[in-house]
Amino acid sequence: MAELTQRDVAYEANGTRMIGCLVAPVGAAGADASALAAGGPAAESRPGILLVHDAFGLGADTIDLAARYAELGYAVFAADMWGERTEPQGGADIGRLIGSMAANRGEWMSRLGAAHEAAAAQPEFDADRTVIVGACFGGSSALEYVRTGAPVVAAVSIHGGLDLVAHDWSAAIGSATVLLCTGADDPMAGPEHWQPIKAGLTGAGIDWEFDLYSGTRHAFTNPKTDALGMPGAAFHPRNAARAWARTVDFLGEVTGAAAGIRSSAR
Amino acid sequence: MAELTQRDVAYEANGTRMIGCLVAPVGAAGADASALAAGGPAAESRPGILLVHDAFGLGADTIDLAARYAELGYAVFAADMWGERTEPQGGADIGRLIGSMAANRGEWMSRLGAAHEAAAAQPEFDADRTVIVGACFGGSSALEYVRTGAPVVAAVSIHGGLDLVAHDWSAAIGSATVLLCTGADDPMAGPEHWQPIKAGLTGAGIDWEFDLYSGTRHAFTNPKTDALGMPGAAFHPRNAARAWARTVDFLGEVTGAAAGIRSSAR
Repeated sequence: MAELTQRDVAYEANGTRMIGCLVAPVGAAGADASALAAGGPAAESRPGILLVHDAFGLGADTIDLAARYAELGYAVFAADMWGERTEPQGGADIGRLIGSMAANRGEWMSRLGAAHEAAAAQPEFDADRTVIVGACFGGSSALEYVRTGAPVVAAVSIHGGLDLVAHDWSAAIGSATVLLCTGADDPMAGPEHWQPIKAGLTGAGIDWEFDLYSGTRHAFTNPKTDALGMPGAAFHPRNAARAWARTVDFLGEVTGAAAGIRSSAR
Repeated sequence: MAELTQRDVAYEANGTRMIGCLVAPVGAAGADASALAAGGPAAESRPGILLVHDAFGLGADTIDLAARYAELGYAVFAADMWGERTEPQGGADIGRLIGSMAANRGEWMSRLGAAHEAAAAQPEFDADRTVIVGACFGGSSALEYVRTGAPVVAAVSIHGGLDLVAHDWSAAIGSATVLLCTGADDPMAGPEHWQPIKAGLTGAGIDWEFDLYSGTRHAFTNPKTDALGMPGAAFHPRNAARAWARTVDFLGEVTGAAAGIRSSAR
C-alpha cells in the first residue's frame, strides 16, 4: 500500500465556500525525472483525477474512494459540489440540490471549474493529465464538463445520471476520451438518454466506450444503495468490481505509462 | 512465459474430418491439489477455452491466439470448423462456407459440439469450466452455441457477426454469462442486430455485458484486416488491446480463481 497524504483544500465558486480534499501518494522521488529533464511538471506531480461525488456530497465514502485511486499512483482531488461539505440526507434535499444544477448549468460548470482550478494549484496534481471521474451525479457532472469544453484528457461516468446531460456538444474538445459504465436497467440511463449522448460524443469527434451490464440498476457500485430503498437502484457487487477494474485500466491507458502508476498485469 | 504443449487432435463431425489443436500449459504439479483433494478433476486439468476461428479457418494466427490464452493458464482447444484445416482465401469461398452454416444451423452446431467433445476428451481440458471464445465468425458461433443450449459457463464474442445469430433463445441455459465486445461502426453488428440478442439473452436469464467502442469497425482485433480492403472492417490496435484486456479479466472471473490462472493485478 502506498503511503498517502491527505488534506482539505478550501476554494470558492461564485461566493460559495467549498472544501475539497486532496489525496495523493507521498513523494515520488525520481519518478518523473524524465519529465523534469524535459521541462515537465515537478517531480512530485502525478496524473490528476478530479473526483466528483454522487448526490450525497463529499463525505467519508468519496474520500475513501479517492484514497483507492491515490493508492494506484494518482493525485486525486475530490470536489465539493454542494459547498461547506454539505451532505444532504433526504430525497427532498438531494432533489433540490441536483435540480438547482440542472436549472443553472453555468453555476454547475463554474463549480466544477473552480474545483479543477483548486486541484491544479496542488503541486501533486498534474492538471495537463486530468481525468474527471464520477458516479451518479458525479458521472453526469463528468459528462457535462466534457460537453461544455472542459480541458481534460478523459472522463469516466459510472452509472451517471445520463438524463441530466444536455444535448449540444458543439463546445466539446474532440481529443477527450470517455468511458461510460452503465446498468441496462438504470432508469436514469435508458436508451432514450444514452443515444443522444453517443450521437453527441461521436459528432464532437470524441472517442468513447460504452459498457452496458445486464440486470443492473442505478447506483450499482454503492454498497449503501439498497438501504435507501430507491426504486430503480440496487448494489451489484460483481458489476461494481467490473466497472472498477475497467476504470483502472482506462485510467492507466489515458494518462500514459506514467512512472508510479501501476499498470495492469498484461 | 509458461511452457506450453501443443498437439493436433483429429475428430469427426457428420462425416467431415476436423483437425483441431490443443494448446495448454505443461504440467501443473500441485496447482490443483485442493481440487484433487475435493475429488475434483485431475491435477493437470485447467479451465477450458473452446476457441473458434474467424472466417479464415484454423491457421497459424488462431493457433498463436490459442497460445496467448494458454500462457494465462487455460487449456485451449482450437476448433476446426471448415474441416481438414481448410483456410479459405477468397471472399467467394468464405461466403460459401459461412452461408452453409447459416443455412444449416444443425450442421453448424454439430461441428461445435464435436469440437467441444474432442476438447473434453483431452486430459488438460476441464470441460465443466468451458468458455467458448471467438472473433468474427467465431463470435457468431459462440453466441449460437449458447443460444442453442450449449453446456458452457460463458461465452465471449469479439466483433462477432451478430447478423448471423438467430432470435429464438428458448433453448439457452440461463446460468451462462456472455461478454460481447463490438465496434459501434461494425456493419455486421448494428443496433438492429444486437437489440434482439440483448433481448434474447435477457429473456433467457443469461447475464451479459456489452462493450461498445466508438469509431470501430468489424474485425478490429486482426492486424491483417486492413490488407483485405473489406468495407466496414478495420484494425483498431487500441481497442484490440481493450477487448483483449477485458476478455482476460472476464475469463478469470467466470472460471473462478483457479490455481495457475494469472489473476489481474488488483
